Amino acid sequence: MKAIVERIRAEGKNLGRGILKVDSFVNHQLDPALTVEMGQVFASRFAAAGVTGITKIITAEVSGIAPALTTGIALGVPVIYARKSRPITMPTGYFRAEAPSHTKGGIVDLIVSPEYLDASDRVLLIDDFLATGLTIDALASLVAECGATLCGIGCIIEKTFEGGRARLAHLGVPIVTLARVESMEGDEIVVVDPDDK
Amino acid sequence: MKAIVERIRAEGKNLGRGILKVDSFVNHQLDPALTVEMGQVFASRFAAAGVTGITKIITAEVSGIAPALTTGIALGVPVIYARKSRPITMPTGYFRAEAPSHTKGGIVDLIVSPEYLDASDRVLLIDDFLATGLTIDALASLVAECGATLCGIGCIIEKTFEGGRARLAHLGVPIVTLARVESMEGDEIVVVDPDDK
Repeated sequence: MKAIVERIRAEGKNLGRGILKVDSFVNHQLDPALTVEMGQVFASRFAAAGVTGITKIITAEVSGIAPALTTGIALGVPVIYARKSRPITMPTGYFRAEAPSHTKGGIVDLIVSPEYLDASDRVLLIDDFLATGLTIDALASLVAECGATLCGIGCIIEKTFEGGRARLAHLGVPIVTLARVESMEGDEIVVVDPDDK
Repeated sequence: MKAIVERIRAEGKNLGRGILKVDSFVNHQLDPALTVEMGQVFASRFAAAGVTGITKIITAEVSGIAPALTTGIALGVPVIYARKSRPITMPTGYFRAEAPSHTKGGIVDLIVSPEYLDASDRVLLIDDFLATGLTIDALASLVAECGATLCGIGCIIEKTFEGGRARLAHLGVPIVTLARVESMEGDEIVVVDPDDK
C-alpha cells in the first residue's frame, strides 16, 4: 500500500534491535483516513485471494484495534479484540494463550471469551506488525480453541527479516501485509510495497 | 443515541458494584456500523454545542480507541491514544498521569508523548465510560501538560450515579454522552437517551 510505504519512509525510525518506531500513525497516533484505507485494502486483498464469507475479525489489544476496526467497517462484520488481562466483565471459561511482547519484554497473555466466537465463524486475523509471528500464532490458537475457522491473516507492516511468514505457514491461510520492511541499518529502512511486482 | 440505549437494554449486564458489562459492543467485541455512528453523533453533538476547530482527538487505551477513531474519521483529525505503559518506541520527556482502574483495581498510568500534541492543538477527549471521571480528569491533565486546549469531552456511556460530570465541571467544557445509566439494581438497568427531552 503506497501510502503506508511513504509514511514509513518519511516517519519511521529504526530504534535498533529490530524495533521500528511508527508511533505517528500506528502505535500512539492514528491517521483516520489512512486507517480507513488500510481496512479497505485488506478487504480487497483478501477478496482477491479468494477469501470470502468472513463473519468476524479478531485482533489483539492495543495497536491492532484500529486496523481491525476499519477492516470490520469495510467488510461489515464484528471485531473482537483479545484482552491482555482479564477484565472483571469477562466470565470464567475464557481461552488464554501466551505470546512474547516485542516492545515491552516478557510474556503477555491473550484472552478471548467464547461468548462472541464459535464454530460457525469464519475469521480474519488483523494486527499491526508481522514480526516473529508468535503473537499471531497465539491468536490463531485462540480462534481454533473457540472452534472457529481462521481464513486469513493481515498485518500493516511485515518485518521480513524476523521470519514470521514462515512460522505461520502451518496455518495454511493467505497472509496479506501492506508494507514489507526488508532491512533496517542505521537510518536506512528498506521498505517495499508488496503491490509492486 | 437510540441504538446504544437499545443495545444496553438488550445486552448490558449489571455485574454488581457499579460494573456494567457491555463486552458485546464496547469492551471485547465491536460493532463497526454502531461504532461509526457513535463518531458521527459525537461530531454533530459537539458542533451543535459550538465546539469547532478541533485538531486532535485524545483517548486512553484500550476501550477508548474505537470510538475515538470513528470520531476522528467523522472530523478528519488525528487520534492519539494514551498508553498505559511506556512502549520502548516512546522517547523520554513524555507526560504521565495516574488514574484508578475501574475494572481491574489498582492504579494505572496514562502516558502521552508531546511529539503529537502541542499548544496549537484544540482537543476532543473521547472515552468509553464516564463513571467517576478520574480517568478523564487524568487525560485532561495530560492535554494541559502538552499545552493544548481541551474543548470537549465525549463518552459513550455515562453512569450518572458515579458523579463524574460534577467532578469534570472544573474543566469548563461541554460533556457529551450517548447513553445515561441512572441506576442498576439486580437485572434492572435504567438507561436514558440524552436526546429524549
